[in-house]
Amino acid sequence: MTAEVASKRKSICIIAYSGELEPTWASMIIASTAAAMDMEVSIFVTFWGFGALVKDSKRLPGKNLMQRMLSVMQRPGISHRKLSKMNFMGMGPWMMFQLAKKYNVSKPKDLLGMCQELGVKIYPCQMTMDLFGLNKEDLIDGLEDPVGAATMLQLATEADSTLFI
Amino acid sequence: MTAEVASKRKSICIIAYSGELEPTWASMIIASTAAAMDMEVSIFVTFWGFGALVKDSKRLPGKNLMQRMLSVMQRPGISHRKLSKMNFMGMGPWMMFQLAKKYNVSKPKDLLGMCQELGVKIYPCQMTMDLFGLNKEDLIDGLEDPVGAATMLQLATEADSTLFI
Amino acid sequence: MTAEVASKRKSICIIAYSGELEPTWASMIIASTAAAMDMEVSIFVTFWGFGALVKDSKRLPGKNLMQRMLSVMQRPGISHRKLSKMNFMGMGPWMMFQLAKKYNVSKPKDLLGMCQELGVKIYPCQMTMDLFGLNKEDLIDGLEDPVGAATMLQLATEADSTLFI
Repeated sequence: MTAEVASKRKSICIIAYSGELEPTWASMIIASTAAAMDMEVSIFVTFWGFGALVKDSKRLPGKNLMQRMLSVMQRPGISHRKLSKMNFMGMGPWMMFQLAKKYNVSKPKDLLGMCQELGVKIYPCQMTMDLFGLNKEDLIDGLEDPVGAATMLQLATEADSTLFI
Repeated sequence: MTAEVASKRKSICIIAYSGELEPTWASMIIASTAAAMDMEVSIFVTFWGFGALVKDSKRLPGKNLMQRMLSVMQRPGISHRKLSKMNFMGMGPWMMFQLAKKYNVSKPKDLLGMCQELGVKIYPCQMTMDLFGLNKEDLIDGLEDPVGAATMLQLATEADSTLFI
Repeated sequence: MTAEVASKRKSICIIAYSGELEPTWASMIIASTAAAMDMEVSIFVTFWGFGALVKDSKRLPGKNLMQRMLSVMQRPGISHRKLSKMNFMGMGPWMMFQLAKKYNVSKPKDLLGMCQELGVKIYPCQMTMDLFGLNKEDLIDGLEDPVGAATMLQLATEADSTLFI
């Protein structure tokens, strides 16, 4: 084994598919920890995962009625993610955030910022953007250019570990 | 490294566990894209994933009352998958299909056909077939013989990337 | 390739994140089968996955009101997992268990015991224990010491296959 191979950085690829609070949080914790460990980290964001990429301030993104209805039903923005269960009109997430604060666990939004500072590459899925009628301006800054499933598959098969979250 | 090793085709393994429309769609998009890229693709279908393997025309598969009740509660067939959220009596999936049509995204059923034409190997889980009382005749044509978790684990550990969807 | 490398045991890593009956069952089936095939198996249990690690007899773990409320809403214990859909006040899981018995599929609790006997390493997530206010005494015996995301990432990137369930 050559020195070059031996010193290869480890890499992980996350396919961020879910939109609820817990999987969003899990993705962000895993990605930021991996980046802090100097791993190469790529996140391919698709389907409901876009809840975390749309700017918190965007209330109703979408270009046509159906797309805007999707936004009404699933408010986008990383600060507006809901628990997958026991949401109780927002009380569930509120409790989670209180507990997280008490035990020094960063919020998903802060972890996302940390990921971006640590060089995590975040790829929006082009097809999802088309389906949901999202523009680049609807999304947070600092993302890679949108890509398709083929690019995602290259990232996934080259990574040491791929997680579909 | 010999030429043989260097030219090894990439491979992915999908464990298709979920039965809702979105994960079914995601599996089909990933599998058909990977096959089109000349990757080796295997899909192990288990638990609710069988919703996509039962023939659309089968209304109430199952050999005993309990198994038939499961079919009543979760209508099988790839054309009958429901959204995991905001299903709204079928309006959610209808909107999704309208948007997909508008943006040239193929339906899961068409993608499944494409997968089969491109040589994707689809393995039904034997244990799930037993539990749900499914026969080979309940399932679509062109599948591999049913296998167990041991075969799935071999596929998973040999693939470059494994996704539990 | 040396004999040592050629004979390396295969390994899988499961990130057990979900708390419902089906994913818990899936994790246990996969882990116990892999261990029986002499693979190295590690399970990192996090978030709702703790439903399977808390002792069945613990009714309301948690150190403060919010943590206890989480326990009220999601009764922990591997024998108390609910189906992700059609739970019907417990009738869904009951039907599942009846069918499982009929077709000789072991219950999650028995599979967990089998995993422990076969040397599967189960790592509780320290952060989740903090958030939910769980002590070592709340959890079943025979677990590894609690670890963080960094250890999980090492296990995941070293395994032949990693499944986020």
